[in-house]
Amino acid sequence: MSVDPRESQPNPQGSRIDPYVDAYAARAAGMVASEVRALFAVASRPEVVSLAGGMPNISALPLDALGELAQQVVVEQGRTALQYGSAQGDPVLRQQICEVMALEEIDASPDDVIVTVGSQQALDLVTKVFVDPGDVVLTEGPTYVTAINTFAAYQAHIEHIPMDDDGVIPEALEERLAALTRQGKRVKFFYTVPTFNNPAGVTLAPERRHRVLEICERFNLLVVEDNPYGLLRYEGDPVRPLRAESERNVIYLGSFSKTLSPGFRIGWALAPAAVRDKLILAVESAMLSHSNFNQAIVGRYLATQPWPEQIKEFNEMYRARRDAMLSSLDALMPPECSWTRPSGGFFVWATLPEGINSKAMLPRAVNERVAYVPGTGFYYGGGGERNMRLSFCYPTPEQIREGVRRLVSVLESEIELRDTFGGVPSSTGRGGEAPAPDLP
Amino acid sequence: MSVDPRESQPNPQGSRIDPYVDAYAARAAGMVASEVRALFAVASRPEVVSLAGGMPNISALPLDALGELAQQVVVEQGRTALQYGSAQGDPVLRQQICEVMALEEIDASPDDVIVTVGSQQALDLVTKVFVDPGDVVLTEGPTYVTAINTFAAYQAHIEHIPMDDDGVIPEALEERLAALTRQGKRVKFFYTVPTFNNPAGVTLAPERRHRVLEICERFNLLVVEDNPYGLLRYEGDPVRPLRAESERNVIYLGSFSKTLSPGFRIGWALAPAAVRDKLILAVESAMLSHSNFNQAIVGRYLATQPWPEQIKEFNEMYRARRDAMLSSLDALMPPECSWTRPSGGFFVWATLPEGINSKAMLPRAVNERVAYVPGTGFYYGGGGERNMRLSFCYPTPEQIREGVRRLVSVLESEIELRDTFGGVPSSTGRGGEAPAPDLP
Repeated sequence: MSVDPRESQPNPQGSRIDPYVDAYAARAAGMVASEVRALFAVASRPEVVSLAGGMPNISALPLDALGELAQQVVVEQGRTALQYGSAQGDPVLRQQICEVMALEEIDASPDDVIVTVGSQQALDLVTKVFVDPGDVVLTEGPTYVTAINTFAAYQAHIEHIPMDDDGVIPEALEERLAALTRQGKRVKFFYTVPTFNNPAGVTLAPERRHRVLEICERFNLLVVEDNPYGLLRYEGDPVRPLRAESERNVIYLGSFSKTLSPGFRIGWALAPAAVRDKLILAVESAMLSHSNFNQAIVGRYLATQPWPEQIKEFNEMYRARRDAMLSSLDALMPPECSWTRPSGGFFVWATLPEGINSKAMLPRAVNERVAYVPGTGFYYGGGGERNMRLSFCYPTPEQIREGVRRLVSVLESEIELRDTFGGVPSSTGRGGEAPAPDLP
Repeated sequence: MSVDPRESQPNPQGSRIDPYVDAYAARAAGMVASEVRALFAVASRPEVVSLAGGMPNISALPLDALGELAQQVVVEQGRTALQYGSAQGDPVLRQQICEVMALEEIDASPDDVIVTVGSQQALDLVTKVFVDPGDVVLTEGPTYVTAINTFAAYQAHIEHIPMDDDGVIPEALEERLAALTRQGKRVKFFYTVPTFNNPAGVTLAPERRHRVLEICERFNLLVVEDNPYGLLRYEGDPVRPLRAESERNVIYLGSFSKTLSPGFRIGWALAPAAVRDKLILAVESAMLSHSNFNQAIVGRYLATQPWPEQIKEFNEMYRARRDAMLSSLDALMPPECSWTRPSGGFFVWATLPEGINSKAMLPRAVNERVAYVPGTGFYYGGGGERNMRLSFCYPTPEQIREGVRRLVSVLESEIELRDTFGGVPSSTGRGGEAPAPDLP
């Protein structure tokens, strides 16, 4: 199998004359397809072990029970479930969402919850409500790829704050905020995935959480806390979300995509009342309302099924996969490589030796039947050239071990090439690439 | 029962100190709650006949069959249906959508269809891709209320083109386009609901359709054709959508909300290839993907159920309701009133006598247990003070007749007041009000 990404089709930009090119909004310039997208189409072939995707493994879901719930919702409450709903979302589900958040010690009122199409839509609407072109959005570096695309689509100026194994570095955040304030920049919010970060796999240490909140409050900066993985912990003690410490200054985003299923597209925002009201209006103009039907099914699932046990079962499965990945990396990775050791979530973030470019290596890796996401996708405006995101959520432990073996073999060839010829040309990073379709 | 709209709660603006007021994006200023929203909460009480809402009447849906389909989707294809999907939408459903559009003589490829959360999301994304602040969007006057909100949320400058009983007036469109071109304005598209217009109830005459398309092509202007009601025709011959005449210059929006159910939130855009690619990227950053699950249910419904017969049944029901409304209006409305005579869709647009303000009259109407939508909601920046939208989709024929009786009684009192005291103060119109939740 031979793969040349330059042959990729379709290429939305460039290869075709676009008669509307002068008509697009300026923000559309930030909507650009990823260069590696075509490669991921190849990577989804069955012979390839994909360590790239962020899809949850839903094979453990009780499909018979869910099927019955879906039928009951239609037959017993179809007149309302199949009708338009409220823009804020179903009140019963919003109450249940508060109970889910209470598991992480968040104290919230259903009045302040807005149901959205995954937490992705919540992030889009928060950005829509707050960000004017040129406004600064701060995020961890690296950060969730589609968050970058969302901010770029509203023409935000995105800046990354560095992380270490304990999450974002508070001093770096404070320093950057002070500098931006001196420059008179409008900084709109700090977007963070503090627990089991996507893509870094690290968790913001408890002692740092207070510090981050204190800094943001001092600079009058909203925190947008994205917590899709919080309940997927495989070891160690739970860490309280930022929202559990600060009600006034945190917009919290949650999701059932990883704890139940992404197929219902149910996420939510929990926001201070004034922001909540803006978000409800934004929901209306974006889609009128979410599906009453889907909300009712998730509501019935939470009301009738042993969902905390289901999450435990997911965690058992994911723990075994994480262990398979970490032990394979420990055993096989060449010297000069390092990687994070996640206590939960879906991702390991690896750093390659000097002179190895993960994006340049990707076609060769796919050729060897293993895929990952190059680190550059998780930075805006450069960075991550020596990094890769390895996900352990979807493949089996056996596949993960085989995938790491293949990856290491490619990496060793790259290192040999580097030592012989002095390295491969480095990439210049990216600006607002869209993710591959399988990269939530 | 006494209603004072000034007592309305919650009022997202004004009544509460908003600590984030300086942080919002400029576009958030265009996201404003409707003044009449609180009134509609009252209007939803059972004793009120609501001629206000645009909810389809789904009581004829085969819930048993739909319940079984939903169960089958989960049990038989849950592994994919409950997983993330593609941003463009399910290929099988996209093919079926083309078959639905073929009923109206639209020839389309599934490759050019994007599945969205109702056609509302399609409209939001089209606006996001095309409209910079200050760009002009042309629409009919009056036009769909949430379209106005969507355009306002992207800071469009919205201009209305007048209609008569045959739809938008081509000469008025041409004249306005010529003037805007002379002024060097960037006009991004002409948004139109040409068939069974919401709220006007009128249909663009066939001979005008070619003229409108010719004008827009000459001015290099995209047409955004919103056609949620096209298949809901109660008399006369079908009219070909604009998209059936022009593939290159029309973005077409469709929906299953009125022909099946709004509860699945499945709509679509059909767009020229270059625009389609932009819209797919916009879908990704807005919500990653629509629900595979909902798409699979609608796909199975179309594949296994007699849906054209279902639409016929809907049409029988709606025809009886329209007839009830028109015959009641004919019999009871005072002189100096006029109204449109829709051949399909959900709405009648009434014009009241000089000196009668429909918004000022609304609290008195609700007090008399009948509700409607004042015409001002369907204009941006003023207009419609003497108009109201009367919908016949949801109440029964008996309720419609009773509703019209109550309305006429209120109207007669208003006319008497006007004749005695010289009229009520007129409203100054609106700018970007959000609709009541029941007003799709």
